[in-house]
Amino acid sequence: MRIIILGGDGFCGWPTALHLSKQGYDILIVDSLARRNIDNELEVSSLTPIRPIGERLRTWKRLSGQHIAFERFDVATDYQKLLSVIVEWEPDAIIHFAEQRAAPYSMKSSFHKRYTVSNNINATNNLLAAVVEAGCDTHVVHLGTMGVYGYGAAGIAIPEGYLPITVHTHDGTAISQEIMFPPNPGSIYHLTKTQDQLLFAFYNKNDEVRVTDLHQGIVWGTQTEETVIDERLINRFDYDGDFGTVLNRFLVEAAVGHPLTVHGTGRQTRAFINIQDTVRCIEIAISNPPNRGDRVRIFNQMTQTFRLIELARLVSELTGAEICHVENPRKEATENDLIVDNEALIRLGLQPIRLEKALLSEITGIARKYSANCDISKIPCVSRW
Amino acid sequence: MRIIILGGDGFCGWPTALHLSKQGYDILIVDSLARRNIDNELEVSSLTPIRPIGERLRTWKRLSGQHIAFERFDVATDYQKLLSVIVEWEPDAIIHFAEQRAAPYSMKSSFHKRYTVSNNINATNNLLAAVVEAGCDTHVVHLGTMGVYGYGAAGIAIPEGYLPITVHTHDGTAISQEIMFPPNPGSIYHLTKTQDQLLFAFYNKNDEVRVTDLHQGIVWGTQTEETVIDERLINRFDYDGDFGTVLNRFLVEAAVGHPLTVHGTGRQTRAFINIQDTVRCIEIAISNPPNRGDRVRIFNQMTQTFRLIELARLVSELTGAEICHVENPRKEATENDLIVDNEALIRLGLQPIRLEKALLSEITGIARKYSANCDISKIPCVSRW
Repeated sequence: MRIIILGGDGFCGWPTALHLSKQGYDILIVDSLARRNIDNELEVSSLTPIRPIGERLRTWKRLSGQHIAFERFDVATDYQKLLSVIVEWEPDAIIHFAEQRAAPYSMKSSFHKRYTVSNNINATNNLLAAVVEAGCDTHVVHLGTMGVYGYGAAGIAIPEGYLPITVHTHDGTAISQEIMFPPNPGSIYHLTKTQDQLLFAFYNKNDEVRVTDLHQGIVWGTQTEETVIDERLINRFDYDGDFGTVLNRFLVEAAVGHPLTVHGTGRQTRAFINIQDTVRCIEIAISNPPNRGDRVRIFNQMTQTFRLIELARLVSELTGAEICHVENPRKEATENDLIVDNEALIRLGLQPIRLEKALLSEITGIARKYSANCDISKIPCVSRW
Repeated sequence: MRIIILGGDGFCGWPTALHLSKQGYDILIVDSLARRNIDNELEVSSLTPIRPIGERLRTWKRLSGQHIAFERFDVATDYQKLLSVIVEWEPDAIIHFAEQRAAPYSMKSSFHKRYTVSNNINATNNLLAAVVEAGCDTHVVHLGTMGVYGYGAAGIAIPEGYLPITVHTHDGTAISQEIMFPPNPGSIYHLTKTQDQLLFAFYNKNDEVRVTDLHQGIVWGTQTEETVIDERLINRFDYDGDFGTVLNRFLVEAAVGHPLTVHGTGRQTRAFINIQDTVRCIEIAISNPPNRGDRVRIFNQMTQTFRLIELARLVSELTGAEICHVENPRKEATENDLIVDNEALIRLGLQPIRLEKALLSEITGIARKYSANCDISKIPCVSRW
């Protein structure tokens, strides 16, 4: 099977490329290196010493014998190149990671709002328009986010994309329908993913494009079975206030002897998944594609929920770090419950990695090992909204 | 009151600018002249002899004594200019017409899909980001479309934006909520208006931007009380298969002795409004602004519904033209009902113009008078989807 991975140099894209290459898929990575360029803008680097994409690919070829092709261009702006790559490759699936993926970054300024909207929406629309123009019955697999649902939806368990509702017709008859879960994004970044959903629904209805939208929780963990083989294959680890997710920032804070900074009460509940499970979920999605004519398939790609304060306590117990509460930079409820249906991927074979069991290796194998690379001044969230 | 009209040289924008100028509002038109440039691309012109914007504005100044300011730039690409204009003008309201507004044009090719998405979404996001960055408590009035609802929603009367539903919590309790009406766009153009809704909802929730979204039906008619004063003020009349709306095409077909071409069965029901009512609705919206903190206000800006075949019969009775059915170039149901709540604008004072009464002046005053300008080859819809 031939697979194109858009954004295949990034945090989820790179381990996905290696995992699928290992399984024998024929992989083309397309990446503009936008994420590395943002490191330059923010004056921060991955805690782990990631290597240039060329070195990554040469190392993988030497160690695995597998060739991964690479094209450097911007999916959001170079439509003709994207189209020609799809026509040439005739991929069975295209995995779409080519979006700006940080909520705090998207809220830093008007520039960042505008970049995030234009980049993400044009990337998705270019992909879908190119698939239609190429006349290619490929399966589009998109990394969405649990954040499209919003949090604390009044006690409603979050379904896998579609919500059963009852409405009344003009003559008063009650009828049942299933609708796309009403979106409630908490940042410009999350907003773009709700706009993506509308693009997928339209091209699916109008052109029968086959789409799986994976509504992913917050990813934790760094390494996978493939990235751990050689340090030159190591995955990104972001700990800064813009791109670092909550658990990564706790781990680095503990490693450098800083108190764990919990936003607000810490009683916000979030959905999580390990990076190793992410790559397995993507393989499950592409090896079980929807049929032509099926509606957009939505999976909730998350395995556990935690309150932020629970995560802080777990890290504190393992490291001895203190916990301190800081003002929440985000506009959100001070606390929320989160009940999520995530049965679909589990029924297809996912065996979740439990955070409680795997956390220690993140602390000793990554955070402590590379703590000398940390610029402590970059940990706080300075993007407020 | 100071008003900025984005897209103020277009079919709805120009008569709105004149109407509000007449009422004493201080008007700045911003327009890139994109619509006139599309005439060059499509090799077709307005049936009516529209004049350059400079001549329009000089004529209005001479006849009314009112100055309308004008800036030529692209709202979707020139953010800094937009921001500086808002900071300088401190407008009480900004009326946003600056979007590509034709469904068939949006579906012509990948280029047209991509232009429509990028132009419309970036224009709206730039406007909202600029309003926030300027720190300006202006009222954003947006021209949306009835097409966000889709047609034939299983007998559900279309409310003014928000639909009451019943859902069940995880423990089985039934609860009532009001949600944005589930979108069901029929073209890329309509899709962008559903994405706009998400932008408005987000900036409204996060930044308390005051927004009125006017979900407009298909506009018919050409002239308003102001555009009719002098031929140099005349409004556009599009009759081509991309930008011409259904009634205009029937009128031109009748004027040139061509049968009225009805798409499919003609039993599709659509919502309509006269251009004179459009400009009055906009004045009603800006003179009754929502309060800061109110959710996005949505009005259904339409006054009548007709099946397409009913319109064809009306025109046929007045002109003697024959009716012929042609294959429908759109993907849509062969027929649908349409029940719409449009009470809000009527409660605020709108007195609708009835199509049955005003149609004759369109036939004799516009279609016949300017029929020599018609290129018959441009009438058929060649954009198919």
